[in-house]
Amino acid sequence: MSAGDCIFCKMVAGQIPVARVYEDEIVFAFLDIGPISDGHTLVIPKQHFEKLHDCPPELLGEVASRLGRIAGAVAAAMNADGYNLLCNNGRAAGQLIEHLHFHIVPRNVGDGVFDRWPSYKYPHGKIEKIADKIRENL
Amino acid sequence: MSAGDCIFCKMVAGQIPVARVYEDEIVFAFLDIGPISDGHTLVIPKQHFEKLHDCPPELLGEVASRLGRIAGAVAAAMNADGYNLLCNNGRAAGQLIEHLHFHIVPRNVGDGVFDRWPSYKYPHGKIEKIADKIRENL
Repeated sequence: MSAGDCIFCKMVAGQIPVARVYEDEIVFAFLDIGPISDGHTLVIPKQHFEKLHDCPPELLGEVASRLGRIAGAVAAAMNADGYNLLCNNGRAAGQLIEHLHFHIVPRNVGDGVFDRWPSYKYPHGKIEKIADKIRENL
Repeated sequence: MSAGDCIFCKMVAGQIPVARVYEDEIVFAFLDIGPISDGHTLVIPKQHFEKLHDCPPELLGEVASRLGRIAGAVAAAMNADGYNLLCNNGRAAGQLIEHLHFHIVPRNVGDGVFDRWPSYKYPHGKIEKIADKIRENL
């Protein structure tokens, strides 16, 4: 998807109304209209990149340096017990809008929003092989 | 939890063995021993902070500037269709180790790892009130 067709780029450009919570020269933050908890906020770089690894490291750092302050404000405003920061990359991972975005999801004890964490154990020797493979790709 | 009692600080210090995938002066990245998909990687700042909003913005930016490269390598090594970046803050949000950490979870189409996204709609007028409240807390 090109930037010209991107709904988030249109929000940044003021062509689509949005419940904005923060904006500066680098990032744009607004409420998700399909929240999974009240106060569910999206933070995006104004510049169009599809995925985390598409965003130049320096710009990614600039975007992320704002996330703590925004997440803290979201959690405080919603009187939340905690929050998830989530960034889905690729359709397989649940990314619906192909413009890099960080979800901030306020959480409260027992809310059951993300209640599944299907962890398992590696068979003997597998973890070292996977670590080797990742290091080779760095 | 103080840094002295922190299992992640002990990993950084080499006191606990770990399947390390990347390390530099700022971050430490290693495989989660209880993965939710093969290649599930944790990226942490070496310095001890509990939550995203506890980490000074500049350092958070430095940490995050590494995330794209590491996530890209994890996805490439695992031949994944996508990945989630996830940072749980507070027990209510599923944070078990009280040292700021980013999960990188490789994903494949139809793997069902995070298959629930319980979104809803705000009643009329509520989204603007919430946006106001967050802006007041920034």
